[in-house]
Amino acid sequence: MNIDMIRAAAQRIQGHARYTPLLNSPFLDEIAGRRVWVKPECLQHTGSFKFRGGWSALSALDEQTRAKGVIAFSSGNHAQGVALAARSHGVPSVIIMPSDAPALKIANTKALGAEVVLYDRDGESRDAIGAAMSKERGLTLIKPYDEPEVIAGQGTVGLEIATQAAEHGITKAEVIVCCGGGGLTSGIALALEADAPDMLVRPVEPEGFDDVARSLKDGVIRSNAATSGNICDAVITLQPGDITFPIMKRLCGSGLTVSEDEALQAMAQAFSRLKLVAEPGGAIALASALYRSDQITGDDVIVVISGGNVDAALFQTALSRFGV
Amino acid sequence: MNIDMIRAAAQRIQGHARYTPLLNSPFLDEIAGRRVWVKPECLQHTGSFKFRGGWSALSALDEQTRAKGVIAFSSGNHAQGVALAARSHGVPSVIIMPSDAPALKIANTKALGAEVVLYDRDGESRDAIGAAMSKERGLTLIKPYDEPEVIAGQGTVGLEIATQAAEHGITKAEVIVCCGGGGLTSGIALALEADAPDMLVRPVEPEGFDDVARSLKDGVIRSNAATSGNICDAVITLQPGDITFPIMKRLCGSGLTVSEDEALQAMAQAFSRLKLVAEPGGAIALASALYRSDQITGDDVIVVISGGNVDAALFQTALSRFGV
Repeated sequence: MNIDMIRAAAQRIQGHARYTPLLNSPFLDEIAGRRVWVKPECLQHTGSFKFRGGWSALSALDEQTRAKGVIAFSSGNHAQGVALAARSHGVPSVIIMPSDAPALKIANTKALGAEVVLYDRDGESRDAIGAAMSKERGLTLIKPYDEPEVIAGQGTVGLEIATQAAEHGITKAEVIVCCGGGGLTSGIALALEADAPDMLVRPVEPEGFDDVARSLKDGVIRSNAATSGNICDAVITLQPGDITFPIMKRLCGSGLTVSEDEALQAMAQAFSRLKLVAEPGGAIALASALYRSDQITGDDVIVVISGGNVDAALFQTALSRFGV
Repeated sequence: MNIDMIRAAAQRIQGHARYTPLLNSPFLDEIAGRRVWVKPECLQHTGSFKFRGGWSALSALDEQTRAKGVIAFSSGNHAQGVALAARSHGVPSVIIMPSDAPALKIANTKALGAEVVLYDRDGESRDAIGAAMSKERGLTLIKPYDEPEVIAGQGTVGLEIATQAAEHGITKAEVIVCCGGGGLTSGIALALEADAPDMLVRPVEPEGFDDVARSLKDGVIRSNAATSGNICDAVITLQPGDITFPIMKRLCGSGLTVSEDEALQAMAQAFSRLKLVAEPGGAIALASALYRSDQITGDDVIVVISGGNVDAALFQTALSRFGV
């Protein structure tokens, strides 16, 4: 896993993934007490950065392997990213989702061309189902984060940040990244190590689900006690990956955490000041910049909004509680 | 008023206004029955395209004149666009607003550095107040649309559309533009006449406030019976401008109209499929592409989302009625 893989992924992705802008607002700067720069991956195809990793992984396969199709386990953003990347490559995708996944997510994933296979969380093993289908059809598994070509795809966000920040004269800043398994965080960290070495990547997680922060602190992989029960579901995993963690350990600063309320409040700020729709887990980096500014240093902070796939009801909650 | 002025404005704006992306979604394509391309000016500084016109007008002034400051009459997007453009140029701005304007809009305009002067709609003449202040301080009036350098600034949206569409292989399409006084519409029409002559600009207005559609049909300027009483307030003016109308008459196709409900429904679609916040008047071009597709021709349609300055309560209404 190295910078050359990220640059190669950037080449393959060009013209397919969106080169998202770098946004700011004087109103956000005022809250944060420093300049806040926002990389809105909610504007990426399928509404999250996951399309980059999906495209990178698919485009890295040799043609014969790819033609047989791919498979992924996901009920969320990774599912949609892989589904659209596969359809764009003209190859089949199978997405294994729990049968109690929201109907809308299932419908969206199907609409993006995937064959959705539902399994019963209690009675069935998704791994067994996936393994059987992979073997039978020769499908390639696209893991959500602990996979070099996926990390390389997410790392293209970091290449863009380095270029865009430099256009504003910024070469030194903390770069705060919403962190689940660490694919996006480690990819960005590798990209910035090469292209903006004075920037420091810091992961942010929901309070109570800070496996990465604790792992970084202790120097070894730590797990969460639970993997559900927080509105920031998109960024909650059991623990950092075996590939992503060593990268984060080598390159990242200490982890940050924010509360659910801070995530909702950041969603309301993204709505009114940036005209963006952020999902709770996608808003935690902005939340930390706005509401944990005492834990951040420097004149500029760069935050990634990792996704915007939130249903209308939850978005309305954010607005009724914190909107203006 | 000609293409050279738009190209000159583009030069002056470069690095100051945002080059907004061109977005799409397979889900929107499916509703519309053709490919829908969205130019999201809600992502522009101050949340609307008005910043372009403000910057263009300010940057076109000679230094001595500019240093004295500018003045504008507006309670909405033009106010914020001019205020920020003036502050960015380091010169004062005075914005004349009705005393019953929403407190938030007044606060935002002040926060962007403007001196806000309130007048009583019933008892005072804003023109008299503005004229007195202009004379006293040597302020230059920046009109909202019937001003060549403002039209030139808005026209830069058209230059970008031509370039971005060509990157997707599109040179022929209807381009639907949310239309008030016609500054954005006429500017885009002039830009596309030069850079994408096979594209046809069509204005869209709220039902019952279709002064531009009727003016185009009759070949002479027609007025609205009222200028308030519709949620699409940002795009409602009494009639097209004396400068903008002849341009639209020469270059535009017939006007479209949409209902308030269609505007709200398009806002909900922009939320879920593009992760964008559109204001009602800013969503009417998307609404026409989605819900009036029988009045549009071609494989591709390009729509401008002109702004995103909507308060949380009204956005929640759109989501509760039409969100998923």
